[in-house]
Amino acid sequence: MELTQDGFLGGRVQAWQPRVGYRAATDPVFLAAACPAKPGDTVLELGCGVGVAALCLMARVENLSVTGVERQANYADLARRNGLDVVTADLTALPSDLRQKSYDQIIANPPYYGPGTGSDDAGRDAALREETPLTNWIAVARARLKPGGWLTMIHLAERLPDILRGLDGFGDVAVLPLVAREGRAAGRVLVRARKGARAPFRLLAPLVIHAGASHEADGDDYSATARAILRDGAAVPFG
Amino acid sequence: MELTQDGFLGGRVQAWQPRVGYRAATDPVFLAAACPAKPGDTVLELGCGVGVAALCLMARVENLSVTGVERQANYADLARRNGLDVVTADLTALPSDLRQKSYDQIIANPPYYGPGTGSDDAGRDAALREETPLTNWIAVARARLKPGGWLTMIHLAERLPDILRGLDGFGDVAVLPLVAREGRAAGRVLVRARKGARAPFRLLAPLVIHAGASHEADGDDYSATARAILRDGAAVPFG
Repeated sequence: MELTQDGFLGGRVQAWQPRVGYRAATDPVFLAAACPAKPGDTVLELGCGVGVAALCLMARVENLSVTGVERQANYADLARRNGLDVVTADLTALPSDLRQKSYDQIIANPPYYGPGTGSDDAGRDAALREETPLTNWIAVARARLKPGGWLTMIHLAERLPDILRGLDGFGDVAVLPLVAREGRAAGRVLVRARKGARAPFRLLAPLVIHAGASHEADGDDYSATARAILRDGAAVPFG
Repeated sequence: MELTQDGFLGGRVQAWQPRVGYRAATDPVFLAAACPAKPGDTVLELGCGVGVAALCLMARVENLSVTGVERQANYADLARRNGLDVVTADLTALPSDLRQKSYDQIIANPPYYGPGTGSDDAGRDAALREETPLTNWIAVARARLKPGGWLTMIHLAERLPDILRGLDGFGDVAVLPLVAREGRAAGRVLVRARKGARAPFRLLAPLVIHAGASHEADGDDYSATARAILRDGAAVPFG
């Protein structure tokens, strides 16, 4: 497998990943920035891939105890090489020692596309295809969170109804739409929910990723908020 | 009951309503503006109150056949006086002639507050309190819509998960957040859904109601988009 080493958070996080296949871009960085972890928290990432979200979170918040779960052995191996503690397992069949633990924070960036999307790269395919239903991801998170613990997810905006439907037993749910440019429909949503909480649902103002009305070829055109998150390691403002 | 006659859409719609009690403001006007009715459509408004949403819709789209349902007799009487065809009935116990009809469009602005909110005005209380669960409103809409017919609702943003959960059998669901000012969380949501459709869920850019960062005492401070809808009778841009 041919690899590249890529920088995130302005180069503070370096991660090996396959040159061809599922490659981390901005989604895991936004996911990490939206997680309300405090120093000392225990964190579980479901479906960690090569570990970019977990590594970005560890770069922002000190003294975390982070574990990743990844079912594809080659991605799990790369995540270990990138410096993450990883359990190679399907999230619906976690090993018993993991099933006896509970966590302050769970983060997840589940596959975006349904089974049936064609691809000539099996690893990329498995990383992108939703073979485990979204509700199972949320159910596993609910089971592994401490009372009052937080689940933070990123997903396609079009799956928001399915996510909200799955969040039984959570409260203080907040949705932060990610939009490519001002005035557009949301492409992704960041969703944060607290196990056992009662506070009402909130739909926050969108985070606009690119400034200006269209793509500028020379240099990145990130908005100030997006640049602070993606380059400088700022947290996502969650209201 | 002491009454006032109030103007909507820059005075093009006039409606009598109680001076004290539930009073229509901007919500029914936004609701009417979000309904994708075409000339000749049949329209049912569930819980029409004094009829402001239905009257605003009739002012924008020609040649509609509109019926309101309202369970409070005094509001239903006022809606008739305001020029609307109204059936006095609880929406969960519609008369049999209504139950034999189906509609191109259904609009609804259900009560916003749970049973238990105190109020010293019984009419206002019944108009604001959610005595009929939100899922029942949606179930009645589903039953009374033609295949391919549209349900358009306005509600508190915090109830969005309950609305989405209720929309089994609908597709092409789109949510348009209404925010008081740029950068704020959504206060209300406009939700549009099509019976039997398959198109994916969309989370649209918020509609900002007020321009500027804070309230200006002299004159209204509506954004250009809000003013076009509220004063000039424009449709809500739904992507």
